[in-house]
Amino acid sequence: MKQKKYRSQHGLFVVEGEKVVRELMEAAVKPIALFVNDSTLLKKFEEAELVPPQVLKQMSSLTHPSGILGVFHMMGPRDKTKTDWTVVLDAVRDPGNLGTIIRLCDWFGIDELVCSSDTVDCYNPKVLQATMGSIARVSVTYTNIADYLSESERPIYGAYMDGASVYRTNLGENGILVMGNEANGISEEIGKLITERISIPQFGGATTESLNVATATAILLNEIRRG
Amino acid sequence: MKQKKYRSQHGLFVVEGEKVVRELMEAAVKPIALFVNDSTLLKKFEEAELVPPQVLKQMSSLTHPSGILGVFHMMGPRDKTKTDWTVVLDAVRDPGNLGTIIRLCDWFGIDELVCSSDTVDCYNPKVLQATMGSIARVSVTYTNIADYLSESERPIYGAYMDGASVYRTNLGENGILVMGNEANGISEEIGKLITERISIPQFGGATTESLNVATATAILLNEIRRG
Repeated sequence: MKQKKYRSQHGLFVVEGEKVVRELMEAAVKPIALFVNDSTLLKKFEEAELVPPQVLKQMSSLTHPSGILGVFHMMGPRDKTKTDWTVVLDAVRDPGNLGTIIRLCDWFGIDELVCSSDTVDCYNPKVLQATMGSIARVSVTYTNIADYLSESERPIYGAYMDGASVYRTNLGENGILVMGNEANGISEEIGKLITERISIPQFGGATTESLNVATATAILLNEIRRG
Repeated sequence: MKQKKYRSQHGLFVVEGEKVVRELMEAAVKPIALFVNDSTLLKKFEEAELVPPQVLKQMSSLTHPSGILGVFHMMGPRDKTKTDWTVVLDAVRDPGNLGTIIRLCDWFGIDELVCSSDTVDCYNPKVLQATMGSIARVSVTYTNIADYLSESERPIYGAYMDGASVYRTNLGENGILVMGNEANGISEEIGKLITERISIPQFGGATTESLNVATATAILLNEIRRG
């Protein structure tokens, strides 16, 4: 279950930690199985099974297991009829970044996140730790994003260092926001499908590293929703 | 040098990795000493001293040393006469969050970051890895922030889950933005000194965890600068 191929084959994923297990269950996701390693946790999660700590340690992918581990069904695609904006990720590799972006989509009411097949797996334990329960409320799919974008009729905005200022861009009622890889940005192939290149103005005088992809996504989603 | 007390006593700090060392040097910060462990790196950094890999490993705080390690003087406070906005951190503990916030201050031209004494040390290696060269351009100081805020004449904005919408708040020409601890937000003591409680509106229907402190800082600094 710690490896992606097993996760996909069985359509199951594992989360660890009281807070994220509780968040998922509150989002009305019922665990297939739930294990705890002490009786205090058993009182809080009455449906759980009590197992010896060394058994939980074997199942866990953490160096210091949290004492609770849930097995859940992967979420299927949601009803997309109401989707106004979609975020598309082109090869985002860092689990913390993907987790933060899923949480941001949830916060800003973006129901659909579409990832290139080389984006980090959203059921990776580190991603789940960063998303908390948001994974249950945002539809995350993996596909050929070039095909996805070609078939779309909505305007396609891409985040670039040298794009037009987002403050002067008219972000409409609906659209697609493409965010690129941590080191290389949006790939050339995908770049050809972008209808508007946008950027976040820089106010510091000196040359600076670009903003981190999760940080930039936060600012752009806020721009989309603030109207 | 890996421990805070030694760093403070000597006014020196260590950074590792080609990219961040180069960024600091480009920000016109001259290293006190610079060590590399191979001749390829020596060609790129001619002023460096070549040392055997095992020596570099002993100096390094990383499990997998990057091959280059620089020792720098800590930055002193900058000229504050031009400071319009200041960010104040109340007990931010995660090095990645502090590093991201320093980078954001640099991006948005905020020269001054004031941290409570229980905020994570900005010369912590993990913070430096996340800030890149920004640490050379943003003045980071540690102090009793209750005293700092009491003496200030600028309006003091604090980020809360239940504050007034930042979209409807008139953020003036200057002010102070206070961001709180990852788990507990702004402490009660500091809360009493806040003149306006602000928040980032939520668009997802369901209850969600609050935004991460670095993400929220990104959005609020963008709101301050977009005008």
